[in-house]
Amino acid sequence: MSIRVTIWNEYRHERSSAAVAAIYPQGIHETLAQALRAQPDFVVRTATLDEPEHGLSAEVLQDTDVLIWWGHKAHDEVQDDVVERVVQRVWAGMGFIALHSAHFSKPFKRLMGTDCALRWREASDKERFWVVNPAHPIAQGLPDFFELEREEMYGEFFGVPQPDALVFISWFSGGEVFRSGCCWYRGMGKVFYFRPGHETYPTYHHPLVQQVIANAVRWAAPTPVANFTRDVRRPSAPLEPLPQH
Amino acid sequence: MSIRVTIWNEYRHERSSAAVAAIYPQGIHETLAQALRAQPDFVVRTATLDEPEHGLSAEVLQDTDVLIWWGHKAHDEVQDDVVERVVQRVWAGMGFIALHSAHFSKPFKRLMGTDCALRWREASDKERFWVVNPAHPIAQGLPDFFELEREEMYGEFFGVPQPDALVFISWFSGGEVFRSGCCWYRGMGKVFYFRPGHETYPTYHHPLVQQVIANAVRWAAPTPVANFTRDVRRPSAPLEPLPQH
Amino acid sequence: MSIRVTIWNEYRHERSSAAVAAIYPQGIHETLAQALRAQPDFVVRTATLDEPEHGLSAEVLQDTDVLIWWGHKAHDEVQDDVVERVVQRVWAGMGFIALHSAHFSKPFKRLMGTDCALRWREASDKERFWVVNPAHPIAQGLPDFFELEREEMYGEFFGVPQPDALVFISWFSGGEVFRSGCCWYRGMGKVFYFRPGHETYPTYHHPLVQQVIANAVRWAAPTPVANFTRDVRRPSAPLEPLPQH
Amino acid sequence: MSIRVTIWNEYRHERSSAAVAAIYPQGIHETLAQALRAQPDFVVRTATLDEPEHGLSAEVLQDTDVLIWWGHKAHDEVQDDVVERVVQRVWAGMGFIALHSAHFSKPFKRLMGTDCALRWREASDKERFWVVNPAHPIAQGLPDFFELEREEMYGEFFGVPQPDALVFISWFSGGEVFRSGCCWYRGMGKVFYFRPGHETYPTYHHPLVQQVIANAVRWAAPTPVANFTRDVRRPSAPLEPLPQH
Repeated sequence: MSIRVTIWNEYRHERSSAAVAAIYPQGIHETLAQALRAQPDFVVRTATLDEPEHGLSAEVLQDTDVLIWWGHKAHDEVQDDVVERVVQRVWAGMGFIALHSAHFSKPFKRLMGTDCALRWREASDKERFWVVNPAHPIAQGLPDFFELEREEMYGEFFGVPQPDALVFISWFSGGEVFRSGCCWYRGMGKVFYFRPGHETYPTYHHPLVQQVIANAVRWAAPTPVANFTRDVRRPSAPLEPLPQH
Repeated sequence: MSIRVTIWNEYRHERSSAAVAAIYPQGIHETLAQALRAQPDFVVRTATLDEPEHGLSAEVLQDTDVLIWWGHKAHDEVQDDVVERVVQRVWAGMGFIALHSAHFSKPFKRLMGTDCALRWREASDKERFWVVNPAHPIAQGLPDFFELEREEMYGEFFGVPQPDALVFISWFSGGEVFRSGCCWYRGMGKVFYFRPGHETYPTYHHPLVQQVIANAVRWAAPTPVANFTRDVRRPSAPLEPLPQH
Repeated sequence: MSIRVTIWNEYRHERSSAAVAAIYPQGIHETLAQALRAQPDFVVRTATLDEPEHGLSAEVLQDTDVLIWWGHKAHDEVQDDVVERVVQRVWAGMGFIALHSAHFSKPFKRLMGTDCALRWREASDKERFWVVNPAHPIAQGLPDFFELEREEMYGEFFGVPQPDALVFISWFSGGEVFRSGCCWYRGMGKVFYFRPGHETYPTYHHPLVQQVIANAVRWAAPTPVANFTRDVRRPSAPLEPLPQH
Repeated sequence: MSIRVTIWNEYRHERSSAAVAAIYPQGIHETLAQALRAQPDFVVRTATLDEPEHGLSAEVLQDTDVLIWWGHKAHDEVQDDVVERVVQRVWAGMGFIALHSAHFSKPFKRLMGTDCALRWREASDKERFWVVNPAHPIAQGLPDFFELEREEMYGEFFGVPQPDALVFISWFSGGEVFRSGCCWYRGMGKVFYFRPGHETYPTYHHPLVQQVIANAVRWAAPTPVANFTRDVRRPSAPLEPLPQH
């Protein structure tokens, strides 16, 4: 059965900066879409901020199993009703993968319940990803560690809830560490945060970064449950006779 | 060193229902305050919905180590700016204890990032609390289990994040179970949800219920950290020389 | 790709008790094997205590992706070298599913690091399984809850480590609760404990019990990692130049 | 109420190596004991490998609230009956703090249920400890990070169960990371692993290292529970009338 993936991108840097456009000519979303389309069981579409309803109509979300999110400088322009729609879909089972600066996106912050703040530096750090849970499906096919020659640094303390599973920890040449692959359950849905992907580096062209994202899509795909009742507005009848008083 | 506790209560049922007033003549908050004032290291004050700023001015919150919250039918009347203030204080270290129907309070839902919905029945169930983490400080002084002769039922699925520590599971005579004592870290603060306390039952007069709440206050009190920097608006300087490219 | 499942059964009760033999004429392992063979992607074999090396030679374990374990009255007869072999295989990636009284089996206790003790009663309790993590793959296809008309009771406190994911909580008519579906990571392997299955009840004929076990097999199947080095006997060379002193 | 601390040390390196003796003339245990005796609520004693019963008689353990363990080259000389005694005491509530190379000590491995292996290098790395859970009591009084100028490197993958709380992550100048402050519940007891402390460096003289260990002692001290029954050899009577069949 196919997994329906929607890749959402702010898509502003690529249109305003020649340097970014040189790395992602059709946008980060298209680079990721191309990579994920190579997976035979994925059906991939994209959506961007400047489309009507940011490309995330109720119909699109209803047809989405896993939503990937990249945003950076226009978090505030994302309309609250669309955010609410995304969050509700996650609670109902949709997977959500937040990439890099999406740590400050509205849906991610709503789903975490924390400030999601972190230490950062846009310089020329080397980043090394260490696998700290090799049994986890998101580590599938990876070596002990892999590295990116240059990336923006994100450092602890990262203001997120303790992850339900921690898959990667990043080492940075400038002296910091970061919990860079974090999993959480949220209602019937799953959330994964994956750190790398500053727009000025070719991170999303890296085959292991692509593999992590593909692994995360499979992990985050909805778990279908049967007859699972979430209509909690009405009182429940007792299943057993109650004690008499 | 004293722990400064603020007990917040919606305080509406007690003033509109004779049955509730018979159980809590001065309000749920005063019953809890009396119990907690018996702890020599606690300094206790109260605040209620109908006070200015709901009794939760910036000054009061600044002077609060642990905030206990009971609300039920007027969640929507709690002003959003006060909610935001509470949430920010939790992220900065204040403990937050949500009691019973506060599972649907605005600050709790904001801190969880989930729908916080549950199954419920106001009937005459017996509730039995089983300790499932006897090493946890919130279990201090408790037996294997204790029970309340009558309580409202709350049943699974409870739409909260997986707790960082689960201390109690409730058994209900009508056939349900519930994760009724849940701990989470949120930033520099700690959150505890404790299930019992429907306003029509004398739950908060029960000595073990009072003991759990006192234990939770001690657990949730802030952890003072020194020189802990959360000014994340400015980039960080590298601690080590960066690689040359 | 197929998942190679080995079902291990003590296989003593079925041969010494007519009542148990009436329920499981070929043994619990054969009832489970039949159910799992209905999954097109599973390749299933069985092994029992009284076979040479308990049916768990190094070759069999090497060819096993997920090992299911049922034992009860002969835990002590399982040879320590076979236990060690099983544990090492789990650390190297093999899934391990402990059923019911296997909470006291040697491999499970070794993998947990705790006493694994619990409260129990062989009576005629009704057991009701509540799903408390509907996003987890082991909950796939299940309703809010399902029940077994009669089962042995297992109650808290269950002396196991806090599960990395808790999928089910059981309600018992006699008044107890139990964390009855627990997941843990152990090295590169995964462990699931599933509570039901006393030999005098037809539990393993129940379609939802079978479904949970099939779900657990898929979840516990090894995550293949590439070039993952666990040769930790020799010191590692630094990846970066070390500071000079 | 006082916390009774026993510091156990292998105490071999200090007697066979002049370099180590220069750093810890009375042994690592005495350096730690001196530091912890500065805490007014701690009562501190020491025990070493070459004492009868390794200094850990049943009486000593019965009088110990928290046991700190340092061992390295003589893990195998620790007698199995003493190991069993320690493990049983942890399950009954005693705290256990494993330091540095105690990751491979018999009691720690028994309590974890994993191989506890790791990557390592004895060189001249700088180690930097980042606080990743500032709400946790073990982080009390610490800054965002602190560092040791020279230490042995321990790197991931560290073969331990996912911690119930992760307090520190270490950065090493040679390019590795490590989960260097890990908490687990084990039965009624608590376990903390703290990474630093190679015998050839003056690590345990560092005031923040001492503070972490003091914080960990307070966190790991037993939680007294009342009438908590762990006699699980006999069947339990039902608390409620069972269903008739």
